[in-house]
Amino acid sequence: MNIPAQARTICLEIQYDGAQYCGWQRQPKQQSVQEMLECAIERVSQEKVTCVASGRTDSGVHARKQVVSFVLRSSKANLEAYHIGVNRYLPDDIRVLCAKEVSEDFHAIRNSYSKTYRYFFSLFPTQNLFYRHYVWNLSYSIDISQMKQACEVFVGTHDFSCFQTHPREKKSHVRTIQALSVQPMHDFFFIEVKADGFLRHMVRALVGTLIDAGRGKISVEDCSMILTSLDRNQAGQTAPAHALFLWDVFYDETSKEKSTLDLSWEVE
Amino acid sequence: MNIPAQARTICLEIQYDGAQYCGWQRQPKQQSVQEMLECAIERVSQEKVTCVASGRTDSGVHARKQVVSFVLRSSKANLEAYHIGVNRYLPDDIRVLCAKEVSEDFHAIRNSYSKTYRYFFSLFPTQNLFYRHYVWNLSYSIDISQMKQACEVFVGTHDFSCFQTHPREKKSHVRTIQALSVQPMHDFFFIEVKADGFLRHMVRALVGTLIDAGRGKISVEDCSMILTSLDRNQAGQTAPAHALFLWDVFYDETSKEKSTLDLSWEVE
Repeated sequence: MNIPAQARTICLEIQYDGAQYCGWQRQPKQQSVQEMLECAIERVSQEKVTCVASGRTDSGVHARKQVVSFVLRSSKANLEAYHIGVNRYLPDDIRVLCAKEVSEDFHAIRNSYSKTYRYFFSLFPTQNLFYRHYVWNLSYSIDISQMKQACEVFVGTHDFSCFQTHPREKKSHVRTIQALSVQPMHDFFFIEVKADGFLRHMVRALVGTLIDAGRGKISVEDCSMILTSLDRNQAGQTAPAHALFLWDVFYDETSKEKSTLDLSWEVE
Repeated sequence: MNIPAQARTICLEIQYDGAQYCGWQRQPKQQSVQEMLECAIERVSQEKVTCVASGRTDSGVHARKQVVSFVLRSSKANLEAYHIGVNRYLPDDIRVLCAKEVSEDFHAIRNSYSKTYRYFFSLFPTQNLFYRHYVWNLSYSIDISQMKQACEVFVGTHDFSCFQTHPREKKSHVRTIQALSVQPMHDFFFIEVKADGFLRHMVRALVGTLIDAGRGKISVEDCSMILTSLDRNQAGQTAPAHALFLWDVFYDETSKEKSTLDLSWEVE
């Protein structure tokens, strides 16, 4: 991309409820978060923009914090216009939390060194219906300590083909899970996973597998076998989208190093 | 009501999201929580029942905990059927939390000695869109300490005609507010009010008035004048329904005394 001398790169932190969207990325004939956000920005900037997000989220998946960057070629609008102003043109399920100007080579995906997702679930028979749109209510009992043991199997640098829904030839499925835990919160629990990158549907397949371990359907040893099998059919079901949140995105502002990850899924 | 010798009185604790309902009470041509619950119970009991709730909630108002009682004349079904069984026939925005058998003279309104409502609000510019269906997002700043001072004016036994939307002649508007506070919680605040009874729309008019005090539109002295004026036109706006929850209901199980309150609104 040719960036003119007067170009500015703007970074937004945004939040969205994914229920009404086909996901972050633009899709033909479907409503995406990207399209809604770009349209709102263009009403402020009066120029065409293309937003890059720290990672795609799938249909129905939410973002507590998503980081987005875009390049302005000519707009003189101040930063507040990209926070308060853009919010005026967004529906109430997408919000800009803050806007800042960043160095022109900033890239919301490539500069990110890790991201955190949280997946919320509640145990039968505890239910709090006010969270029903954001929590997976399980209709069976779960042994949380078994889930925690299963978590340990997946931490580290591995080929995660067992959690890859759309296998691609000649692309690396190696990712590093930096942290994986199950934690209580109010009336429910969440699984938190921090990694340097994610394959498509990876978190939800991981969650489905951990839940299988918690309900005693598979053992901790089975989890090791699933990981080494590299076979999606061995792992658990893809957990429903409505309880998954992109929770946080981490940038090392002091480092100029670009990620060396295979980002083709996340960039393309 | 003639209660046959074999009759049993069942008490349920229920929870509901009021957004899709005209309120607790049955209304012609509208969908009420009472109707949904009675229909679900009748599928289990195979007999017609009439549910009495601890208090009516208005259209759009939620219940974290509502207490409901009804009399069974002939059913032999066990208590679990009125918990797990009834839930099977309820939509996902109404839940039975527990069921118990109570003495036959138990009455969900008359035996209650107080109820608590919570009203949730958030301050500009803090927003968390995942709570948007249950929190009133204010677009102006608020002085919480002013709200707290205003709360003190309304605690105690008073004629609350200033908060009564539908005045009725010859009926007492005297109620006792036992506690009234403003408290922080996560990213927002709530107003909690505990009283021996509530006039129609009383909590929402009280909230509207407290918010006026918090934003500096009225002073604490004005609040005293509003209370003594007995005039609904002097008080603040009726706050929106979606952020109000019936939070808790209190019964003194050791006392056989019936409430001496004027319950005509809540019973009729």
